Amino acid sequence: MDFPPLAVSLGDPAGVGPELIAAAWARREAEELPPFFVAGGAEVLQAAAQSRGIALPVAEIFHPAEALDLFGHVLPVLAGADGKYAPGTPDRAGAELALASLSEATALTCTGEAAALVTAPIAKARLAEVGFDYPGQTEYVAAACSYAPGDAVMMLAGTSLRTVPLTVHVALKDVPGLITAALIERKARIVAMALYRDFGIENPRIAVAALNPHAGEDGRMGREDIDVVAPAIAALAAEGIRITGPHSADGLFTAHARPSYDAALCMYHDQALIPLKTLDFDSGVNVTLGLPVIRTSPDHGTAFGIAGQNIADPGAMIAAIRMAGECAARRMGLFDD
Amino acid sequence: MDFPPLAVSLGDPAGVGPELIAAAWARREAEELPPFFVAGGAEVLQAAAQSRGIALPVAEIFHPAEALDLFGHVLPVLAGADGKYAPGTPDRAGAELALASLSEATALTCTGEAAALVTAPIAKARLAEVGFDYPGQTEYVAAACSYAPGDAVMMLAGTSLRTVPLTVHVALKDVPGLITAALIERKARIVAMALYRDFGIENPRIAVAALNPHAGEDGRMGREDIDVVAPAIAALAAEGIRITGPHSADGLFTAHARPSYDAALCMYHDQALIPLKTLDFDSGVNVTLGLPVIRTSPDHGTAFGIAGQNIADPGAMIAAIRMAGECAARRMGLFDD
Repeated sequence: MDFPPLAVSLGDPAGVGPELIAAAWARREAEELPPFFVAGGAEVLQAAAQSRGIALPVAEIFHPAEALDLFGHVLPVLAGADGKYAPGTPDRAGAELALASLSEATALTCTGEAAALVTAPIAKARLAEVGFDYPGQTEYVAAACSYAPGDAVMMLAGTSLRTVPLTVHVALKDVPGLITAALIERKARIVAMALYRDFGIENPRIAVAALNPHAGEDGRMGREDIDVVAPAIAALAAEGIRITGPHSADGLFTAHARPSYDAALCMYHDQALIPLKTLDFDSGVNVTLGLPVIRTSPDHGTAFGIAGQNIADPGAMIAAIRMAGECAARRMGLFDD
Repeated sequence: MDFPPLAVSLGDPAGVGPELIAAAWARREAEELPPFFVAGGAEVLQAAAQSRGIALPVAEIFHPAEALDLFGHVLPVLAGADGKYAPGTPDRAGAELALASLSEATALTCTGEAAALVTAPIAKARLAEVGFDYPGQTEYVAAACSYAPGDAVMMLAGTSLRTVPLTVHVALKDVPGLITAALIERKARIVAMALYRDFGIENPRIAVAALNPHAGEDGRMGREDIDVVAPAIAALAAEGIRITGPHSADGLFTAHARPSYDAALCMYHDQALIPLKTLDFDSGVNVTLGLPVIRTSPDHGTAFGIAGQNIADPGAMIAAIRMAGECAARRMGLFDD
């Protein structure tokens, strides 16, 4: 069986997505990237490539399988929605194009015609105006797989750290009430399985960050770490999962501590994203765990402010494409670790 | 006028403090450290030095001024409490010694006989058992200066980042209620003044981290950044302080963002300490701003688990001693930037 190509969604055509896709394709050989195609937007991609001084030959395709032979010398793009969009100036038509591309790339990954899905950045608020009714692309892909939103787990992966936020886009004041033993256990199991199945880590080690400073110091600064987090960790350890904590979060991401685990489970958005972006701003990947399909994304936004200016760093997009290919190959038993 | 020596407190004698003081003294020439003396514990220091293979000649002194001539060839130690303590095994007598040393070093700094105070790590819970009734050494030093606890501001300073937590040792669930415009304004003014007076930064730039992820995204994830943080920043800016925010905290500590400010004001303990320790675990300094005396400390704990094993890194202790000397010299108008 041939390894199918990856499906890449265009992202918002006024953002940095299209130019980073073009930049990644231009470096396909040096970076040893697996074959991919883009769902729609041939004209957008060529304009974006031009803004970076990249020669981008494009071939319109009608089926993902056509991408495999073409990828070496042209960028394969599925025939579909397209148009002209001004970098840095998002509009409704661009949001519709981004949604159409995401929808098609996701559908082709769900059927197995694409090996994995890589999504370029969208502007959530803009997509909401054209009917996108999800907190983010993670939940969208879960729904496309007929999975509950809670079955999809967002992991941020950099070159020296992987973190998983247990809660994501909620106010800080709501975080303590949302942290339950059931949530920790459900997500930790998904993470442990994914580190094994998708990342090839034989017996993965998970470290859990505490909710409170110094893990609450014996309850003097909050009891959640004692009453909720520690029992969940004990239950998971009893199942045979290698998991430790709750660890004082300020000490968990030091150069000394990082080698002691394969992923850190964090209680809230900033606890997970601050260390990741502090270390790996230009190469962080957002990867969705727990679904029947692999989905990755560069861990940055549309960056409208610098789109079309040949400034945006393609490192995270390249890392997202490479990681999607590696994870998909591991699932299919084709990856040689 | 001679520049007085620095006063260094011993810290818990069963922790890593004494051995790091000995290691710093041994590297006084290579690191160009200013003269300092230790408040008590000559025997403790010599045993700690021995555990690291350091030859540590000690001279007992009775007044700080004696330290200046001695420092080049021996470690000056004030005559006072002392004893034998087992590294890694804290006890009540050790806590009493740590408190006596802290008390004496602080008093001599308050009178001006010492130029600044450097405190080695203590175990707060143990000191509480012998009558230490403060959340931390920061508040203790404020009280010794007859200042209110809120007048002392803790800043963490690494080689590439300075952060200030607006709230410190409180449960995460209590943080949103503690963040007020008055708190932000009071602490930001102290920070701006200290960056100028103690750190020699002519027109310091302060960046404020948001409480909620993505700064609340227009109120969809919490309103505190709109209702409380932004108005405080506007009021401070109107006073002429160079201050920006609230910034999404996950993007504030990237390599791109760090050069854009001189200190980041953070809403809670982990938000300030995670990026600092992620970048600078072995060289972070805790410096107390806003008081009539300069006080610094290595930004790590007693590390009982590795005390006496010649493992602990003296980088943060050395950085704390150097910073105390530089800040004190700037206040006295003796430092040549």
